[in-house]
Amino acid sequence: MEEIYNYQQLYNFCTAVFVKIGCSKADADIAAKALIAADLRGIDSHGVARLTGYVRLWEVKRVNATPQIKITHETPSTAVVDGDAGLGLVVAPYAMQVAIDKAKNVGTGWVSVKNSNHFGIAGYHAMMALPNDMIGIAMTNASALVAPTFSVERMLGTNPIAVAIPAGVEPAFVADFATTTAANGKLEILQRKNADAPTGWIQTKDGQSSINANELKNGGSLLPLGGDREHSSHKGYALGAIVDIFSAVLSGANYGPWVPPFPAYVPMPENMPGEGIGHFFGAMRIDAFRTADEFKQHMDNWIQRFRTAKTVEGEEKVIIPGDPEREMEAERSLYGIPLVKAVVEDLKGLAAKLEIPF
Amino acid sequence: MEEIYNYQQLYNFCTAVFVKIGCSKADADIAAKALIAADLRGIDSHGVARLTGYVRLWEVKRVNATPQIKITHETPSTAVVDGDAGLGLVVAPYAMQVAIDKAKNVGTGWVSVKNSNHFGIAGYHAMMALPNDMIGIAMTNASALVAPTFSVERMLGTNPIAVAIPAGVEPAFVADFATTTAANGKLEILQRKNADAPTGWIQTKDGQSSINANELKNGGSLLPLGGDREHSSHKGYALGAIVDIFSAVLSGANYGPWVPPFPAYVPMPENMPGEGIGHFFGAMRIDAFRTADEFKQHMDNWIQRFRTAKTVEGEEKVIIPGDPEREMEAERSLYGIPLVKAVVEDLKGLAAKLEIPF
Repeated sequence: MEEIYNYQQLYNFCTAVFVKIGCSKADADIAAKALIAADLRGIDSHGVARLTGYVRLWEVKRVNATPQIKITHETPSTAVVDGDAGLGLVVAPYAMQVAIDKAKNVGTGWVSVKNSNHFGIAGYHAMMALPNDMIGIAMTNASALVAPTFSVERMLGTNPIAVAIPAGVEPAFVADFATTTAANGKLEILQRKNADAPTGWIQTKDGQSSINANELKNGGSLLPLGGDREHSSHKGYALGAIVDIFSAVLSGANYGPWVPPFPAYVPMPENMPGEGIGHFFGAMRIDAFRTADEFKQHMDNWIQRFRTAKTVEGEEKVIIPGDPEREMEAERSLYGIPLVKAVVEDLKGLAAKLEIPF
Repeated sequence: MEEIYNYQQLYNFCTAVFVKIGCSKADADIAAKALIAADLRGIDSHGVARLTGYVRLWEVKRVNATPQIKITHETPSTAVVDGDAGLGLVVAPYAMQVAIDKAKNVGTGWVSVKNSNHFGIAGYHAMMALPNDMIGIAMTNASALVAPTFSVERMLGTNPIAVAIPAGVEPAFVADFATTTAANGKLEILQRKNADAPTGWIQTKDGQSSINANELKNGGSLLPLGGDREHSSHKGYALGAIVDIFSAVLSGANYGPWVPPFPAYVPMPENMPGEGIGHFFGAMRIDAFRTADEFKQHMDNWIQRFRTAKTVEGEEKVIIPGDPEREMEAERSLYGIPLVKAVVEDLKGLAAKLEIPF
C-alpha cells in the first residue's frame, strides 16, 4: 500500500516542519532539498521516512535548529567545521561549499566536520561539486551497527562513501554506497516483507552467520563489505574505519562505538571522546589536473566502453554507478514519490502534532 | 621448498640488476627499496618474484631506465606527473614526494601520474607520509583482470587502495588492499597448491561462479569485492572504477581495458587512449585539521578500543589494518625472507643472464 506525493508537496511539508522547530527559512529550504533528494533518488530509507526522527532529536535537544556553523581551523586546502549540533542536512552543504571554495583557490578542498548530525544521503552532497567541474567526495560516520572482522561487537556505522565525477555528454558517474555488504535500509525492506536475508549480510550476537533479517534486534551485527574473512570482510572493515577516522578523528567528533545513535530514545554512549557525529568532504577541480574538456571526453569514453561491455547472459547492460538513482529521479520527478503507508501515517501524526497541513 | 635470504642480499642483487639495465645508482636504490618492501611485508607476489618481469619490460623497451620524470601541470595542491615510462618503483616515490611537499605548503597534496609502470605495493608509497605527520594515500590502476557486475569482460585491474594514518604510541594504521574479493597473488598461491578457490573470487568466461583457481587461463575473470550482486559486488566495482579514473582519466594514462599488461609477451591493447599506466597519490597534513598530538592521542584510543573489541569465540583479537604486515616485516627483518624455489631459480637465471652474482 503506497500513496503518491509529488516533490512540491513533500518540499512544502518538510520546510514547514523545519521552520516550525525553529530553523530559518533559508536553512529549512537547504534541509528539505537534501532530505527529499533521497526519496527522489530511490533511497527511501534516508528521506522523509526519517523526518520524525530528526524532529525527535530536536525535542531531546540533540539537534540545534539555529546553529552557528563555523570554521574552527583552516589552511588553504583544508578546514575543520564545527556544526554546532545543527541538522546534518544543513551542516553538510555548508561544509561541502567550503571544500568547493577552497578548490577554486588552490585546486582541491578537504573539510572534516564535527558536532553534526545525520546528513541524509552522501551522494547529494558529493554532487554539489559537479556544476563546478569538480570531483566531489562525501562520507560520514554513523552509530555503530557493524562488527569488524573477527568481532561480535558493533564498532562502526554503515559509514557510506560517495564520489561524484563529471562527464561530458554522458551523465555524471555517482557512486554512493555503505561500506557494509548491505545498507540497513535494505534489511528494513526484508523485515517489512518478513523475508530472509542472504548470507553474508548479518551475524548473530555470537558471530555466527545468520539469515534472520531481524537479527540486529537480538544483538547481532551488520557485516562489513565482503561478509566474512574468506571473502575479504577485512577490506570492508578497513573502508568503514577510514571513513570513521577521516570524519571524526581528524575533526574531533565521536568515533567507533561512541557515535551518537539516531533514535532519540536510545541513550547516548558513555565517555564520549568528541562532539556529535563527523563527516568528511572533498572537492577536486578537474582543471587542477587537465582541462575539463579533455577530461570529460575521456570520461565519456570510459562510460561508453563500460556500459557496452559484454554482459552475462540474461543481463541487459553493465551499470555505471549512479545510473539507477538517476533513472529513478527522472521517473519520480515526473510521476511522484510513492510513500509506504507506515511513512504516510508517521508524517500525518507529525503534521497533527505540529499543526501543519499534510 | 624455500630458501632464506636476508634483506641485504636481496637489496644488493636488485640494485645491481637495476644498475645493469641502465638505472642511476640513486634510482636503483629507490626501486630496490620499494620492491623488497613487498617481500618484507609478506606480499610475496609483488616483490622480487616480479624482478625478471620488470627486466623483460625493459628488454621490450616498455620501461625506460633513465626517465626524465616531470610535473606537467600543477596548482598549489595538485600536480600531474609524467613518469616518462620509468619504473613505477621510481616514479611513484617521486610523485608521492610531490604530494608531501604540496601538503607542507597548503595542507594537502594530490598527484595523478601518467606514463608509468607497476609500482610494487601501494602501502609502501602511502607510508612515506607517516614520518611527516601526514595521512598518505596511494592507488594505481593495472591491466584488466576483473569483470564489472553483470559483465563477462575483463575491464578493470585489481586496482589497490592504500591509506596510511599515523598514531602515537600505537603503530600506524595502514590499510592496503585490492578492490577485488581476492588479490591475484592469493589465487597464485592456490594454483601452486592445486587447491580450489572459495566461491565469490572468480567467474568463468560465461560469468558463472567458479572455484577453479586456474579459471583465468580459460578466459574467466576476478570478481570485484563483494563477489556477486547479492553481496554488493557493485561496490567493489565502483571502488575499482574510482581508482581507475583518479589514476588515469585525471592524468592522461590508459584506463579500463586499455591498461598495458605486466607480462612483456602479452601484446599491447589496440587504440590506447593514454600513456602507460596511472597512479594517484594524496598527502594530508594532520595539523591542517587539528594538532598532531591531539590526533595521535585519539588514534591511539581508536586503535586500542578496536583491538580489544570482543571477539568471536576462537579468534584471538580484532586486527588493526597493517598489523599482519608489520609483524611480518619485524620477523623477516630479523630472520630473513623465504623465497620459494621457483623464484630462486628465476633470480638465478636472471643473475646468469646479466652476469651478476646471486
